[in-house]
Amino acid sequence: MRNIITITTDFGVRDHFVGAMKGVILTINPEARMLDISHDVASYSVVDGAFTIAQAYPYFPSDTVHLVVVDPGVGGERRPLLVQAGRHFFVGPDNGVFSFIYEREERLLVRHITAEHYFLQPVSRTFHGRDIFSPIVAWLTKGIDPSHFGEPISDYKRIANANPIIQSEKQARGMVLKADKFGNLITNFSVALFPQFVQPEAPVFRLEIGGQQVTRLGKIFSEGAPGEVFAIVGSSGYLEIVCNGGAASRALNVGSGEEIVLTFQ
Amino acid sequence: MRNIITITTDFGVRDHFVGAMKGVILTINPEARMLDISHDVASYSVVDGAFTIAQAYPYFPSDTVHLVVVDPGVGGERRPLLVQAGRHFFVGPDNGVFSFIYEREERLLVRHITAEHYFLQPVSRTFHGRDIFSPIVAWLTKGIDPSHFGEPISDYKRIANANPIIQSEKQARGMVLKADKFGNLITNFSVALFPQFVQPEAPVFRLEIGGQQVTRLGKIFSEGAPGEVFAIVGSSGYLEIVCNGGAASRALNVGSGEEIVLTFQ
Amino acid sequence: MRNIITITTDFGVRDHFVGAMKGVILTINPEARMLDISHDVASYSVVDGAFTIAQAYPYFPSDTVHLVVVDPGVGGERRPLLVQAGRHFFVGPDNGVFSFIYEREERLLVRHITAEHYFLQPVSRTFHGRDIFSPIVAWLTKGIDPSHFGEPISDYKRIANANPIIQSEKQARGMVLKADKFGNLITNFSVALFPQFVQPEAPVFRLEIGGQQVTRLGKIFSEGAPGEVFAIVGSSGYLEIVCNGGAASRALNVGSGEEIVLTFQ
Repeated sequence: MRNIITITTDFGVRDHFVGAMKGVILTINPEARMLDISHDVASYSVVDGAFTIAQAYPYFPSDTVHLVVVDPGVGGERRPLLVQAGRHFFVGPDNGVFSFIYEREERLLVRHITAEHYFLQPVSRTFHGRDIFSPIVAWLTKGIDPSHFGEPISDYKRIANANPIIQSEKQARGMVLKADKFGNLITNFSVALFPQFVQPEAPVFRLEIGGQQVTRLGKIFSEGAPGEVFAIVGSSGYLEIVCNGGAASRALNVGSGEEIVLTFQ
Repeated sequence: MRNIITITTDFGVRDHFVGAMKGVILTINPEARMLDISHDVASYSVVDGAFTIAQAYPYFPSDTVHLVVVDPGVGGERRPLLVQAGRHFFVGPDNGVFSFIYEREERLLVRHITAEHYFLQPVSRTFHGRDIFSPIVAWLTKGIDPSHFGEPISDYKRIANANPIIQSEKQARGMVLKADKFGNLITNFSVALFPQFVQPEAPVFRLEIGGQQVTRLGKIFSEGAPGEVFAIVGSSGYLEIVCNGGAASRALNVGSGEEIVLTFQ
Repeated sequence: MRNIITITTDFGVRDHFVGAMKGVILTINPEARMLDISHDVASYSVVDGAFTIAQAYPYFPSDTVHLVVVDPGVGGERRPLLVQAGRHFFVGPDNGVFSFIYEREERLLVRHITAEHYFLQPVSRTFHGRDIFSPIVAWLTKGIDPSHFGEPISDYKRIANANPIIQSEKQARGMVLKADKFGNLITNFSVALFPQFVQPEAPVFRLEIGGQQVTRLGKIFSEGAPGEVFAIVGSSGYLEIVCNGGAASRALNVGSGEEIVLTFQ
């Protein structure tokens, strides 16, 4: 049964947008079970949306349909996509918001949605979340075969700079993917790329960020002196810069997109 | 099956209020399916609540029950209402929060809820969302006939100024219904009232707001110069003032309630 | 059927945290029905989390499982708990977040969760909400007997200062448990402790808070002069300090944790 839908947007929860989308979905498929991942993706931030869905989707059952609407180009030329990736389905705009899924999943089939007869008519120019993506997701969970929505494509968009740039054996240049609610700075230095961070013996390293240096690798948030800023291997599998009892984002005065240089000794 | 309930409040999501309401509903009707429209309606703003539910409800299946608790007068003289409008049910206070539904739906039956034996006892003076409205909604979804909750009335409240004032054939005075999460300013100039905005040939017009003028009608958010402020026909069917890549509310420094003068040449 | 789960955290709704937890739960128990109480508990505030769940849980059906993850000590020595209390189950860290439940419920059985074979492997050091608490909750709703998760303990933690200190027959020293979304200041003076506040004849009293005094007991939010600050018996059964049409927290410039002295004449 393919009736679980997750929803990730930058629409916020103040307005009617998410409610209208859920109404459209329920009208088409009364059996749909919808779960919110986040509606507070940073406005227009494809990177933040890409990171958010990438961190949540692996925990869902097979055949879950993940709807992601972070869509600054709505109404323009960007294509609507239906992605089959591993055990999951993804629906959203072709602006790079599925970049981390393209990287992680081996079985990948990306379709350009063109089957307009499934859209809510008339299609508005500014709310494809309601008029295009929600109906597609609902019909998909009704059991319509993905091939009915459009043809496969291979030139889908990926975001630039998602991965760190390896500058030498001892140095890489990366960035802060996001500052989470607690002000933890999630970097794009993954333990997959830098396995030395999960070795029994911690590496000797230096992170340069916002004019400051971080050199200690801790294990849990509540260790160290109050207010101390240090790195940990976060629950997402990325290096995070954290602050005991506080917000590293405030302590270092940096946020999403900030450059970080990682140097090993 | 009348078991879908939408919930719209100004209670926020920080506190226990919405959770307590859902518990009450589930205890009475374990089959209830509850969906949040918004709990971040501007505090005490009947206009914002009225707009929010009006924008979401048409997309829901027939027989959906829409619970709206924006209730600054809770505990006072205002009456609790059960509204049958078109294919939908609405439950909430008689303070004008259903004004846009009264305007839009032709089949309309408004009841004053008086059947206290359905209330949660003892009824608090300050949380009728939990003690009156939630149980009524739950019992309604259990199949109790609307007539059992109270008698029809005709003197229910409507909000003033919801519609623009037509000052001449060429001029109307309206207001900003709300600034949405993106800072788009949703006006009360509807395309139903001003169909010229959806004609093939765009009208020549001037919007005066916050000491500035807007004269261009665009089609999508991402057109025009970065930071340019222009008008579009929004997905809600109202004229919106938007800003490419930014927030029109900040660019013009105005928000909900701001007066706008529309002049055609 | 024990398949209703409420979730209360300080994770916010911006990030992927809550979504990942729900995915874990659904993967184990596809029949689980999850409801959010709040994810905006004040960051790291065990008192706020304790208050929030205490105000919501009594309204839920029997056998509801309440998951509470406000867990500043995650990864450290604090134990994971499964609490059976009256008609309900509670799962979360042993840091006092269930203090108000311990006080209120007579039938109480608190277990230290040690059955690691139910955990999501590998267990991260920083996200036990996803890796420990969510799977336990999911397996519990699948019908696993509570005794399978760990042994009963009696030295579980309670928060200090949850209750007012009775200083004399005429004076007590309490605190603000929280400022709610409307800026109402919910105190820890309960009507259970101070029944005189619900007697037909209002008591003569003085509340000293933030250098100011409150001496009037009102009944509803919208009474009194605009901006007047007064006390009411709130819907939670605690004395609240409120402000007609405004936020008492702003009017008095105080918030959660602020000391209040209550003096009867």
